[in-house]
Amino acid sequence: MKEIKPFVTLVGAGPGDAELITLKGIKAIREADVILYDALVNDELLDYAGPDCVKVYVGKRAERLSTSQDEINKLLVDYALNYGHVVRLKGGDPFVFGRGGEELDYVHAHQIETAVVPGISSSISLTGLQQIPLTYRGVAESFWVITGSTSETKLSTDLQLAVKSTATVVVLMGFAKLPQIVAQYQQEGKHNLPIAVIQNGSTTEERIVLGKVDTIIAQVAAANMGAPAIIVLGEVVAKHREFENVLKNLKTTVLSS
Amino acid sequence: MKEIKPFVTLVGAGPGDAELITLKGIKAIREADVILYDALVNDELLDYAGPDCVKVYVGKRAERLSTSQDEINKLLVDYALNYGHVVRLKGGDPFVFGRGGEELDYVHAHQIETAVVPGISSSISLTGLQQIPLTYRGVAESFWVITGSTSETKLSTDLQLAVKSTATVVVLMGFAKLPQIVAQYQQEGKHNLPIAVIQNGSTTEERIVLGKVDTIIAQVAAANMGAPAIIVLGEVVAKHREFENVLKNLKTTVLSS
Repeated sequence: MKEIKPFVTLVGAGPGDAELITLKGIKAIREADVILYDALVNDELLDYAGPDCVKVYVGKRAERLSTSQDEINKLLVDYALNYGHVVRLKGGDPFVFGRGGEELDYVHAHQIETAVVPGISSSISLTGLQQIPLTYRGVAESFWVITGSTSETKLSTDLQLAVKSTATVVVLMGFAKLPQIVAQYQQEGKHNLPIAVIQNGSTTEERIVLGKVDTIIAQVAAANMGAPAIIVLGEVVAKHREFENVLKNLKTTVLSS
Repeated sequence: MKEIKPFVTLVGAGPGDAELITLKGIKAIREADVILYDALVNDELLDYAGPDCVKVYVGKRAERLSTSQDEINKLLVDYALNYGHVVRLKGGDPFVFGRGGEELDYVHAHQIETAVVPGISSSISLTGLQQIPLTYRGVAESFWVITGSTSETKLSTDLQLAVKSTATVVVLMGFAKLPQIVAQYQQEGKHNLPIAVIQNGSTTEERIVLGKVDTIIAQVAAANMGAPAIIVLGEVVAKHREFENVLKNLKTTVLSS
């Protein structure tokens, strides 16, 4: 009988495209005795697992409560003790709103060793794939990544500071709060700030809407956009190659309506 | 004779560990006719290139001026026109202070098509490898990535807002400005905020110093730390498994001195 060495590796699976995982991530999947994977993880990645690997779907939605996270924590420990190497495969990067920190705390409390394999966060990659540079000398020299879904299910108070900065602001899991986000920028007088909403980024269903703070709500409604989507606010959005064309058409639409 | 199709792909090489590049990045390297690579890129990645691939080192330091960037822009276009597919292999992610946006603008101005392959940014991964969670429910619900080296070579004014927030703040290329960064947090009364300095992250020479705002300068000096290093500020730094031990020892040292 094989000796069991309990071990948990958090692995970032990237934003959706199965080729946006790291070599180190693939290696961990190949060596896994068990894989616990999320809803936002590309299924194709499971094909790298060995024939005896146990694959467990633990998909949960951001809206669901901590009982579900408690269950995942317990499963991590149970599977590690009974099977050995557990890979916790998480969408994006494990520590970017992924609750990876809580999982490590729980596993460490059970004296089980751990490792982390970083992943490509949607915050950095979905903008990059659309050729929107998160930073650009003289335009934006920092970027701020905020969740639209805090533990208190209200908008992060950090956004009040973010709207005052020149940082590119990326809001993850915030599609439902787009009206509140827009309102905060309007209060700050940033009516014409470029904004992008990217839905299903890095997949074959990827869609983008480009606009300005004052126009985006109507545009997103007209385009029937929905979650999962990221919101990007900042002058760098105007660097998108289609931005000027979109704005030109917007004006025409507004004038003719 | 092979027909030349000029094309430029920006590829993020990750933070240093050769296994922290994506599958898509490896694929681009394999298909490249020319690779222009930076100082911070792991040389091992060049081994994935084909036998006829032309490999050009264009390493420059953050301190050097835009002539050097101008040269790189021109090389991208020249090589694309004369050889075909140019891979611009950049440390971390191409758009996180990588001047990838400027390179794309220049290449597009010459009617050459482009693609982007996102990379693992040191801002997200070096913290993750040290098991410092960038975000943690109820502790930090956003993170802000700032450069210590702006186009005006002074500290980003965004830092003044960042110190007021509950965001985890990551400063890239800011080691030389650690005293100024610390001073800003002290002015805000955040003397005891946990802080980490990570040098040569993800490589075999990786080192970390954990401390508090008021103690870090002396600690970093005692440990002989130097660039390249990232600075991480925020309550999440206290989640590092060694943090409590380090702080206990710090107190002893202070008491006995």
